[in-house]
Amino acid sequence: MALMNYLTQCTFDYGALEQTPKVLQRLGVTRPFIVTDPGLKANGLLAALLAALGAEPAGMFTETPPNPTESASAKAADAYRAAGANGIVAFGGGSSMDLAKAMGLMVSHEGPFERLGGSVKGMKHIGAIPPLLAIPTTAGTGSEVSPGAVVILDNGRKETFVSPFLVPKAAICDPELTLGLPPQLTAATGMDAMTHCIEAVLTPVVHPPAEAIGVDGAERIGTWIERAVKDGSDRDARWHMMMGSFEGALAFSKGLGAVHGLSHALGRIHDLKLHHGTLNAVILPHSLAMIGNNAADKFARLRRALGLAPNADLAQYIADLNARIGLPTGLAAMGVKEEHGEGAIDYAVSDLATLTNAVPFEGDQYRELFRRAL
Amino acid sequence: MALMNYLTQCTFDYGALEQTPKVLQRLGVTRPFIVTDPGLKANGLLAALLAALGAEPAGMFTETPPNPTESASAKAADAYRAAGANGIVAFGGGSSMDLAKAMGLMVSHEGPFERLGGSVKGMKHIGAIPPLLAIPTTAGTGSEVSPGAVVILDNGRKETFVSPFLVPKAAICDPELTLGLPPQLTAATGMDAMTHCIEAVLTPVVHPPAEAIGVDGAERIGTWIERAVKDGSDRDARWHMMMGSFEGALAFSKGLGAVHGLSHALGRIHDLKLHHGTLNAVILPHSLAMIGNNAADKFARLRRALGLAPNADLAQYIADLNARIGLPTGLAAMGVKEEHGEGAIDYAVSDLATLTNAVPFEGDQYRELFRRAL
Repeated sequence: MALMNYLTQCTFDYGALEQTPKVLQRLGVTRPFIVTDPGLKANGLLAALLAALGAEPAGMFTETPPNPTESASAKAADAYRAAGANGIVAFGGGSSMDLAKAMGLMVSHEGPFERLGGSVKGMKHIGAIPPLLAIPTTAGTGSEVSPGAVVILDNGRKETFVSPFLVPKAAICDPELTLGLPPQLTAATGMDAMTHCIEAVLTPVVHPPAEAIGVDGAERIGTWIERAVKDGSDRDARWHMMMGSFEGALAFSKGLGAVHGLSHALGRIHDLKLHHGTLNAVILPHSLAMIGNNAADKFARLRRALGLAPNADLAQYIADLNARIGLPTGLAAMGVKEEHGEGAIDYAVSDLATLTNAVPFEGDQYRELFRRAL
Repeated sequence: MALMNYLTQCTFDYGALEQTPKVLQRLGVTRPFIVTDPGLKANGLLAALLAALGAEPAGMFTETPPNPTESASAKAADAYRAAGANGIVAFGGGSSMDLAKAMGLMVSHEGPFERLGGSVKGMKHIGAIPPLLAIPTTAGTGSEVSPGAVVILDNGRKETFVSPFLVPKAAICDPELTLGLPPQLTAATGMDAMTHCIEAVLTPVVHPPAEAIGVDGAERIGTWIERAVKDGSDRDARWHMMMGSFEGALAFSKGLGAVHGLSHALGRIHDLKLHHGTLNAVILPHSLAMIGNNAADKFARLRRALGLAPNADLAQYIADLNARIGLPTGLAAMGVKEEHGEGAIDYAVSDLATLTNAVPFEGDQYRELFRRAL
């Protein structure tokens, strides 16, 4: 059992789920409120959590939509207050994690909710939320150790809420929970984690420990993702994919880049239901190609980590990997149309991630990135 | 300026010392008490700190001995209380850092002091100490981000105090402060950091992020230590040595090993005034030789990081490096005698670090290690 303490106390291994009561006790949570999604109710994993808990939670919200919304978060917040809960268990993928964080904000902060958002410098208004234990079931967004939550506001904007106070106090990472993740989700969430590692390494922010973790994560995911996609019951592969996801989020404390800027922006197109991880995977090779020779040392470091020859084409490696694990070849294959581009550009340019891209990125660069990824 | 937040908020770069007042303000420290040693008073660095502070501290203790003692800590504690201080600035090498932590314990915990020690499972009695800002002037012990403090008790035992509460809340790592560090101290403290990185990587504890940081630190120190020793004014070298020291301490959250077990034990021999870093450097090659093939994957990883051939002798590399930077060839050259061995063995076996050695280590193994290192 790995016990890894940074800002989050993380208990990591097969069987870690059994630690849930002990961790809640350590956090002082006597009336936990579970936030999860309908799929985890349907596939039996919620039952596994309840069994590990050993007692009725104070309350539950199981209706997390595929992308968390302000209104769903508010509904959860009402239930939280009605339950007299004093702590949160976020159980699921990035959506449940982020909705749980949004709900935590709502039950502890004056409204309006949107004034806490990153795009309006709302971080200064954010303080403590109830103690939060995050238990991921994908590998993954890394939201279990990250300071952010992405939520679609009532006004339609996809906003990122960022604060050290949103970093979960504790995380339980039990790869058992991912054994049943279907191949396509394994591939998509796995490449989300890969994108975290790679974009984090490439930011110009000076943070050698985070960068070293990102390189390690990229190597780990590169080694294990195909095995995890081909055979979801491969326990070693699932362990390493969950660790790679965890490392990706530790790494992105040094920032992300244009891939996330564009995928956040495109993620706003509700009707297409675009998956964040798949978007990242599809856009990543083109971002790498656009960076070109401007991050030569870091590209060299990533090539070594991924076991590539010194002159290998890193962008092509990612594109080929995407193809081998069954991800779409481009945005068009996901239903994105040329006309979706212009509306996304403004949002992309103002995304926090753009500030730390490896090369300066403005509207024209995003137009080019979108064009190539289409 | 690198801002790296794990358990400690670390501000890292040339000029970071200027951030001292801002950091103290963030910690809520209005009456800071400085802990340092006579050498820093003599060489002008204390004056630099006071200039950066911009105001009189509430009080100061400048008498830290080469190895911190319980009685010196108690003297500092008296001065702290008399000054009505509400926070601590530890300024110096590992001794000042550790004395500051010991003093912090004394002013906030009931006596006797020794019941808080690691060897008597005292961690459970340790709670919050006053806010501590650590500013290292060597590269180094990494004590600015570590949960430990090594103190010679009044009864003669060299005890390790360990607790998450001893991790400094903030650290300012300004390589400017190390520009004047003489070659021998640069070598000795540099190899202390190298030993942290290597022993941490080799522990069997599962903690991939800490391990990745340790590998990065070893690579960094291996690349820059000779330059730093040869030319102390090399600003890049000093930056990287301080970062390598920081990384070594982040890495050893996954534990240390027999090198530290033995060097802690030998460090008790007062009259020899054995330097912790030099002891580590001299013992390390022999510990690596004794581990042999029992950590093949990790040795391979370290060889790659250090730029060695796949079949290179890691132990010999360290011995050769020691020689090139002017460190002694063995314990005998430091004044240690064969009869010092037996008394040290019991202490080594019961040292916390022994629990996480790469291979099981008991009395016989320590005897062998001591014999070889002599």
